[in-house]
Amino acid sequence: MKPFSQMTDAELTAMKADLTQQFEEVKGEGLSLDMSRGKPSKAQLDLSMGMMDVLNSESDYISEDGVDCRNYGGVYGIQEARQLMADLAEVPDKNILIYGNSSLNIMFDTVARGMSVGIMGNTPWGKLDEVKFLCPVPGYDRHFGVTEFFGITMVNVPMLPTGPDMDIVEKLISEDPSIKGIWCVPKYSNPTGISYSDETVRRFARLKPAAPDFRIYWDNAYTVHHLYYEDGYDTILELVEECAKAGNPDLVFKFVSTSKISFPGSGIAALAASEANIKDAENYLKSQTICFDKVNQLRHARYFKDMDGIQAHMKKHADIIRPKFQKVDDVLEKELGGAEIGTWSHPKGGYFISFEALPGCAKAIVAKAKEAGVVMTPAGATYPYGKDPEDSNIRIAPTFPTVEELERACDIFVLSVKLVSIAKILSDRKAG
Amino acid sequence: MKPFSQMTDAELTAMKADLTQQFEEVKGEGLSLDMSRGKPSKAQLDLSMGMMDVLNSESDYISEDGVDCRNYGGVYGIQEARQLMADLAEVPDKNILIYGNSSLNIMFDTVARGMSVGIMGNTPWGKLDEVKFLCPVPGYDRHFGVTEFFGITMVNVPMLPTGPDMDIVEKLISEDPSIKGIWCVPKYSNPTGISYSDETVRRFARLKPAAPDFRIYWDNAYTVHHLYYEDGYDTILELVEECAKAGNPDLVFKFVSTSKISFPGSGIAALAASEANIKDAENYLKSQTICFDKVNQLRHARYFKDMDGIQAHMKKHADIIRPKFQKVDDVLEKELGGAEIGTWSHPKGGYFISFEALPGCAKAIVAKAKEAGVVMTPAGATYPYGKDPEDSNIRIAPTFPTVEELERACDIFVLSVKLVSIAKILSDRKAG
Repeated sequence: MKPFSQMTDAELTAMKADLTQQFEEVKGEGLSLDMSRGKPSKAQLDLSMGMMDVLNSESDYISEDGVDCRNYGGVYGIQEARQLMADLAEVPDKNILIYGNSSLNIMFDTVARGMSVGIMGNTPWGKLDEVKFLCPVPGYDRHFGVTEFFGITMVNVPMLPTGPDMDIVEKLISEDPSIKGIWCVPKYSNPTGISYSDETVRRFARLKPAAPDFRIYWDNAYTVHHLYYEDGYDTILELVEECAKAGNPDLVFKFVSTSKISFPGSGIAALAASEANIKDAENYLKSQTICFDKVNQLRHARYFKDMDGIQAHMKKHADIIRPKFQKVDDVLEKELGGAEIGTWSHPKGGYFISFEALPGCAKAIVAKAKEAGVVMTPAGATYPYGKDPEDSNIRIAPTFPTVEELERACDIFVLSVKLVSIAKILSDRKAG
Repeated sequence: MKPFSQMTDAELTAMKADLTQQFEEVKGEGLSLDMSRGKPSKAQLDLSMGMMDVLNSESDYISEDGVDCRNYGGVYGIQEARQLMADLAEVPDKNILIYGNSSLNIMFDTVARGMSVGIMGNTPWGKLDEVKFLCPVPGYDRHFGVTEFFGITMVNVPMLPTGPDMDIVEKLISEDPSIKGIWCVPKYSNPTGISYSDETVRRFARLKPAAPDFRIYWDNAYTVHHLYYEDGYDTILELVEECAKAGNPDLVFKFVSTSKISFPGSGIAALAASEANIKDAENYLKSQTICFDKVNQLRHARYFKDMDGIQAHMKKHADIIRPKFQKVDDVLEKELGGAEIGTWSHPKGGYFISFEALPGCAKAIVAKAKEAGVVMTPAGATYPYGKDPEDSNIRIAPTFPTVEELERACDIFVLSVKLVSIAKILSDRKAG
């Protein structure tokens, strides 16, 4: 396809008329399709049904370390779950602390801890005039939601193909003691799909923050969530160990969970960090609860057994969602290839494809797609305060719909991209 | 038995020699018995094993309101769990919000919310110079643990047979805007076993606090935990409705959970409150997590079905623990009746018997029992900061041991009470 920018006004106007007709036709179908959230599909959930047979009324509920999982106690998690989550987090089990069903909840609680009692003896942030977090953009809306909720000022940092722009990160955090954290999804980043380079991870480990309670909030949400393409998958350096090697053992909070491995919302989640950080978090935990759901910990440990079990399971997930990522890529390539009205990511794992529209077009594209019954993540959601300064990023979540629904949704999406882009180009020409 | 205070020095000294010999004998047995925590026994846990067969790989996981419980979503809980917990909390379902596995965790999060962002638009407590909570004493150590953790000043309020001394409560909270809460276990109170009178509940509902963000933290932990003696069980007025009637709809946070109904730590918990309070809590929740464990909500709703199901289940619990409460009472009555060296409660439900020793004796009694292998709740634990001003209250938790173990433990306990009391009386006489 010829770049749209090289077409004449007449060519664009003719194409617009044709596309509008197509659009009105699909609109008339009254579709209802959703590419908005990173949710597993029903077929993926069905993969874990065997887990529901692991424990029944005849089972033994005693953990390896002798705890009756049905009763109070064991606030730090049962041994087999600690080991499984330590392996998932790629740390020794002394560096792991098991929580409840949600890693987002751990992140929220960790920020709440910073606010109300302070991290490792430092002043509670609630007592300070201003607290800031760095936010690599585009990023995960729920991270930004946590910091916004607590009134923490968010500062955008651009994402490069290697991860966050570390020149900016290093400069800002070494100068400003009010910066207490940075949100990171280091592998198959939400939404860009980027995995941080070794150099980026090492620069993170060597950071010299002005604030003693600065931490890297390292959300390794997609650590085993490869798409298993034939050309392999991404690996990243393990940051807890890198920080220790760099003499900065306490610099990172790493978060992992079995959401999108077993059942989202009914899994287990954990914090990985230095022993000093774990001890500080345990101190909070001891007041917060008597214990988390050990029966569910036992269910997960007995079902997956070890990392081999988890990896075999993740390959089944990949077999279901890989064709969906390919379908999105195929439609985008076929319909937008060469048109130069958008670029998109080609991640080897994770849950998203990130689409960069022409500047100023994202909101209009999402609104247009919605007219025809396709729900996308709201434009701007991938930026703090919902404000994408370029109004260009759109997050595509291909996992939940079936391949057929996805194809239909992508057809509507590309129609919307084309229509909005033509309008933009024509309007720019008129203005210019 | 003759009151010890009426015995001569010689009588007491002779008895002491005899008791010391008995004590040394049991000490030699090297026992290890635990009456320290309000934990269900194995036999009680076995009652709920049928719940582990309710869901398996063949089950339907769609909730009544159409949610696939295995996936993300439904942050406010599925409909059947909302209804069950609303019934348990004795409120309409518009007044309920389902959380995770622990009501203590809800209480902690609620106080954390007060600290970091404030309750219903009020100033976050973290910004204030001093925040206070009233603590009816003796009370629940983990309540005090939460407020102590956040640096909240705790103010003791005496418990009367009708509940907290409301004259004191009314006076303090109407005068002091730094008082933001009061901890209450209104039914079968921990540890006294007292259930608040209707008049007490009505006075709570009519409170006129100086602080707009003052709330009653109403931990209805033992709402259905009757011992089902032949002479009946306690009922208390429902406070959410009483507050609404009194024109103070937002005054109360009520907490309930299925811990000690199904499996402690693997149950579900909920907050009951006015719609305005629920909305404020939901706002926190939306940032805190994507959802709680809906599979476990479904498991509970399908297993218990309704309050009839829960009550039938609680009668089975009662059949197991009632003989234990009776055994403790029997041993105490037989060994201490008439001796006037201690009084104890006769609760109709809940998890504890509260023992009042002679002033200054509680710590010594607990230490003495430990010498012979009996672990009691630490003396002082039932008071804020672990400081019982009279050093007299000891919490007895009869549920976890078997009846045989309990009898053995009680024998050692009464020996310890007698020995410490004799020493105290003799020492007082010498000093006097």
